[in-house]
Amino acid sequence: MKKFINNIDDLLEESLQGFAKAHADIIQLNTQPHFVKRKNPTPTAKVALISGGGSGHEPLHTGFVGTGMLDAACPGQIFTSPTPDQMMAAAQSIENKGGVLFIVKNYAGDVMNFEIAAEMLDCPSETVLIDDDVSLPKNHSTGRRGVAGTLIVEKIVGAAAEKGLKLSDCKVLGDKVNQMTATMGVALNCCTVPALGKPTFELNDEQIEMGVGIHGERGHETIGLTNATEIVEQIANAINDDLKPKKGQKALLHINGLGSTPLIELHLIYNLAAQYWEKRDIDICRSLVGNYTTSLDMTGCSITLTLLDEEMIKLWDAPVNTANLRWGC
Amino acid sequence: MKKFINNIDDLLEESLQGFAKAHADIIQLNTQPHFVKRKNPTPTAKVALISGGGSGHEPLHTGFVGTGMLDAACPGQIFTSPTPDQMMAAAQSIENKGGVLFIVKNYAGDVMNFEIAAEMLDCPSETVLIDDDVSLPKNHSTGRRGVAGTLIVEKIVGAAAEKGLKLSDCKVLGDKVNQMTATMGVALNCCTVPALGKPTFELNDEQIEMGVGIHGERGHETIGLTNATEIVEQIANAINDDLKPKKGQKALLHINGLGSTPLIELHLIYNLAAQYWEKRDIDICRSLVGNYTTSLDMTGCSITLTLLDEEMIKLWDAPVNTANLRWGC
Repeated sequence: MKKFINNIDDLLEESLQGFAKAHADIIQLNTQPHFVKRKNPTPTAKVALISGGGSGHEPLHTGFVGTGMLDAACPGQIFTSPTPDQMMAAAQSIENKGGVLFIVKNYAGDVMNFEIAAEMLDCPSETVLIDDDVSLPKNHSTGRRGVAGTLIVEKIVGAAAEKGLKLSDCKVLGDKVNQMTATMGVALNCCTVPALGKPTFELNDEQIEMGVGIHGERGHETIGLTNATEIVEQIANAINDDLKPKKGQKALLHINGLGSTPLIELHLIYNLAAQYWEKRDIDICRSLVGNYTTSLDMTGCSITLTLLDEEMIKLWDAPVNTANLRWGC
Repeated sequence: MKKFINNIDDLLEESLQGFAKAHADIIQLNTQPHFVKRKNPTPTAKVALISGGGSGHEPLHTGFVGTGMLDAACPGQIFTSPTPDQMMAAAQSIENKGGVLFIVKNYAGDVMNFEIAAEMLDCPSETVLIDDDVSLPKNHSTGRRGVAGTLIVEKIVGAAAEKGLKLSDCKVLGDKVNQMTATMGVALNCCTVPALGKPTFELNDEQIEMGVGIHGERGHETIGLTNATEIVEQIANAINDDLKPKKGQKALLHINGLGSTPLIELHLIYNLAAQYWEKRDIDICRSLVGNYTTSLDMTGCSITLTLLDEEMIKLWDAPVNTANLRWGC
């Protein structure tokens, strides 16, 4: 296994130290337990947004802590849930009389640990569960997974909280954005988790994996290698069948790199996906292309569509100042 | 070869169309010949900054076109110089009574084609040649290559041009930033150029390549696999020997991913490099970590140090609004 690391056990700590140094103007790192919080909290009471999850998806979530987005993020070990004490410590550190909104990707460990934290917390809290991955059926036994749509919820609710929306309304808004968001991923090659030292599944030179998540797990189908147009068509069909957008509907199109896919290819994917929805009279009025919710060094990408109303557009456009999403500030 | 493409010959065109759609608020794409220009030029006369080079390094250069940085970028085919007619057309389209400054990475084809364009242009022009790659000796027969330091020149001179600095002064400033910048790269695995269909050089599981450029060319030495601390030490020594910073010197530290290196590892590299210079009493007061000057899907990174004076810090901090570098706007 070739990676830029020293000891596997120190990877997360050394990386967080580097992240904190590189972005000391925006965030602060707490180490016992680990969480990252905004350096400049608002002076007025506001809902505190906290997210977190296993590491290896950077910039999600630590890269989205800052003005107009998350107040804190709790990084677990690679592909491993953070612990309730991290969430408790983060919440106690940043809660500012507005209560706490947890934004949680739907994985058993994450859900359980955030639930424990919420129960132990002595301030009001709500949880928005993200389950945007349409590669699994709606009635799947553990529900659908939370993937690249998470950052869209974090951005839109983050802007609303910054403007003073109260906790119960942030919860309603977060659920709405989640319901209007659908994602599906595809991998050409799997990622290598450092502790394992080899890819978590193997594909030969003629295979691609449809419907992958972000933890190196298999997707719903291994198919033969095909061109970008066919790949996009398959994914976009699944998203479209799920969201059923009406003609004239405004939408945000997010092409997310899973780690090792060059930007030149992500832009090609964007072009094809935009054409797909333009043909169906969907108004792709906002876009985001790049590596935002990664799966270590996985070669792959995901396509996310979020249906937008005017309120969501305003909140998406609102100023944000984080390490890895920044505009209007 | 597994990539998200349709036909190899259409990759660049389809990708540029996607880029233009995704960032229609910031840039405009011209297709015959290909160049990308700012959508919102300044109403007042200013020096027009134009860069360009082979594609496959995205976001460089197209992702840095916009307010406070480049006025236009000319993308060639993958790892192939753009042609003089692209540069001429871009210059004629954006020149605004301030003359044209070409920012050119030192590769024979790029240098020749930008020279031809400059000779044919009927307005004043200057050229800043970027040669920040210290993996080659200063007296190398074709000179040192231009690599990740290029964007630092583009950002700082872009801010100066936006503030009204005249052409000759922009040229002096660009040369100064280039001279105060040093970069060296390392690869764990090489990239695959689509037209070739396989990596341009092979490394086994126990080898890494020191001093790589950004075109899949071999570096100056193949060494045995080692840990991140030793890799950073070797690279930082080469940079330090070249720039010879004095104690108390302010500097920008830029860790650049070459395409397939996870952000969690780039932050670890940042931590080690920052420690290296902190120990030497260098004040790392600015940072940039991420995939900015890539080499398709190469697994690797580069370390860049730019020594800063107060003027350069102000220009680095000045507002910039491009697809892939954005703050203060």
